Amino acid sequence: MTDITAAGIPSGSVLLRDALHDVEIDSSGGPVPAGASPRQRGVELRESMLLRAAEVERALDALMPPVHGQEARLVEAMRYAALGGGKRLRGYLVMEVASLFGAAAGAARAGAAVEMLHAYSLVHDDLPAMDDDDLRRGQPSTHIRYDEATAILAGDALQTLAFATLADPATHPDAAVRIALVAALAEAAGAAGMVGGQMIDMEGEGRTLTLPEIERLHALKTGRLIGYSAEAGALIGGAGAAERRAIAEYGRDLGAAFQVADDVLDATESAEQLGKTAGKDAEAGKSTFVALLGIDGARAEAGRLAQRAEAALADLGQEADRLRALARYVVERRN
Amino acid sequence: MTDITAAGIPSGSVLLRDALHDVEIDSSGGPVPAGASPRQRGVELRESMLLRAAEVERALDALMPPVHGQEARLVEAMRYAALGGGKRLRGYLVMEVASLFGAAAGAARAGAAVEMLHAYSLVHDDLPAMDDDDLRRGQPSTHIRYDEATAILAGDALQTLAFATLADPATHPDAAVRIALVAALAEAAGAAGMVGGQMIDMEGEGRTLTLPEIERLHALKTGRLIGYSAEAGALIGGAGAAERRAIAEYGRDLGAAFQVADDVLDATESAEQLGKTAGKDAEAGKSTFVALLGIDGARAEAGRLAQRAEAALADLGQEADRLRALARYVVERRN
Repeated sequence: MTDITAAGIPSGSVLLRDALHDVEIDSSGGPVPAGASPRQRGVELRESMLLRAAEVERALDALMPPVHGQEARLVEAMRYAALGGGKRLRGYLVMEVASLFGAAAGAARAGAAVEMLHAYSLVHDDLPAMDDDDLRRGQPSTHIRYDEATAILAGDALQTLAFATLADPATHPDAAVRIALVAALAEAAGAAGMVGGQMIDMEGEGRTLTLPEIERLHALKTGRLIGYSAEAGALIGGAGAAERRAIAEYGRDLGAAFQVADDVLDATESAEQLGKTAGKDAEAGKSTFVALLGIDGARAEAGRLAQRAEAALADLGQEADRLRALARYVVERRN
Repeated sequence: MTDITAAGIPSGSVLLRDALHDVEIDSSGGPVPAGASPRQRGVELRESMLLRAAEVERALDALMPPVHGQEARLVEAMRYAALGGGKRLRGYLVMEVASLFGAAAGAARAGAAVEMLHAYSLVHDDLPAMDDDDLRRGQPSTHIRYDEATAILAGDALQTLAFATLADPATHPDAAVRIALVAALAEAAGAAGMVGGQMIDMEGEGRTLTLPEIERLHALKTGRLIGYSAEAGALIGGAGAAERRAIAEYGRDLGAAFQVADDVLDATESAEQLGKTAGKDAEAGKSTFVALLGIDGARAEAGRLAQRAEAALADLGQEADRLRALARYVVERRN
């Protein structure tokens, strides 16, 4: 293992082990030379993801309200839902894109805000009236660990906290940038975005969706927030208009590739590997890319989307190599 | 009835009838002379509330996403939950305080945003896992009219839309004002505010709370959002620091008075009068001001808080008379 503790992360922490488990860090590592092989770049990406995941985790931890008073149970449930795990793909994207354009301060906070928003959507998605899932990241879902009322409220408060975090001057000194971050998140997460996609997903149970319908479902449910993460990084980093367009295109295709790959994983990997119930979609009578295209067809589609994401970065230099590697990673990952 | 249609509101609309029903408008009216009696001022307040409620309703209607596409059911449920009723006390406060300081543009939108936030909290509060209430404003609750999953998602999307609305330049041209509106709403609505209060309310079922505990519960659950409404009006209106402090104090006491009066109503009025299930709190084993202070004691406490709210406006002139009348109204209302 590389000398992670040099980066200030306690190597024995649960956090680090979780992150390690998730990104399957290689035992080689060290600085990657400019002409690194794809394999070396993959290693470098996984290390970079691990380090940024830890930064996002620390930001999340610091941003959660203190656990005290009569409402302590709410904050415990918020912490349970938001902390301790996950690849932090969205937070990573915010930070990596922001650093591409030279800005780092505040990016971990904005990354944490997107992760709060994502965590809230998972908590509500897992509720009995929704997907009714008892397992999340290998642990009991929030409503199982606590109760339904607490899970509903913890999800609600996590959404609120995401906006509070973006609105805070510590995220960016310029009010115009902060309000742009808020407006774009609200657009991506609302009825015309993520929640709209969740509704279509619910409505789609038990009937067969067409390929364009599934594409739209996932573009809303998953793609918009992943796209937002890239966009937020560009906003914080102060990217120019052309760069922002390229990053937006990249984020959209990356989000689409991620979801098709997720369908393949759901159909091919065990619950243990995924850390969540496997094969749920087929069981719930949900239409999936795999059902429509077959496993090989869905794999090919994911690869095509990842290539398109890479292509969107054509005008950016070598410093965008990690984002290119990320596009390959999202379709090659095992969980 | 005064010539309401002159204000551009179709007198036969459901909206108007709802508002009329709610504020029990008097059949006298017309311009109120400077030295108006308390009775005349009461009439003037009710008219003003009626007109502003209609403005907030129109803003809400215009701000809701269009009902189409696969996610149409979500938007229908959002509209069902947010439109067509209520006193619009919070929206009124935003508009009335903003106009006190001379600004009106955008105030109806900000008022609509607070009403969206409030509507989302009611939708989630009514869920079976929460208060399990089938009736709201005399109509089936959102999860009864639609289903639980749709109600959860509609509530989620209404919260998001509240932030989207505040972040839009149409609400205020200055990004610094918009981000202040967003930050203060997130503060008032989150774990340290409204949702924290909802959690305490859930936790308090079946055990007796002390008076300070109940006061804190309601200060968070109801008071913070009513206080925010006053604060948002001051922000939009460009009030000075001393004026903002006075308005914040007024809002806090008004919110407290409102909640104590609500407990009295819950204990004394019929479900028909309230438009929601009556006596629910006692049945759920919840501690109330009435249980601790008795009906007369709670009435006296509400009156004391309303007087304190009025007193906070001492340095504001006659133009704040409607806010003073509003403080009396919240403790004298019948629903």
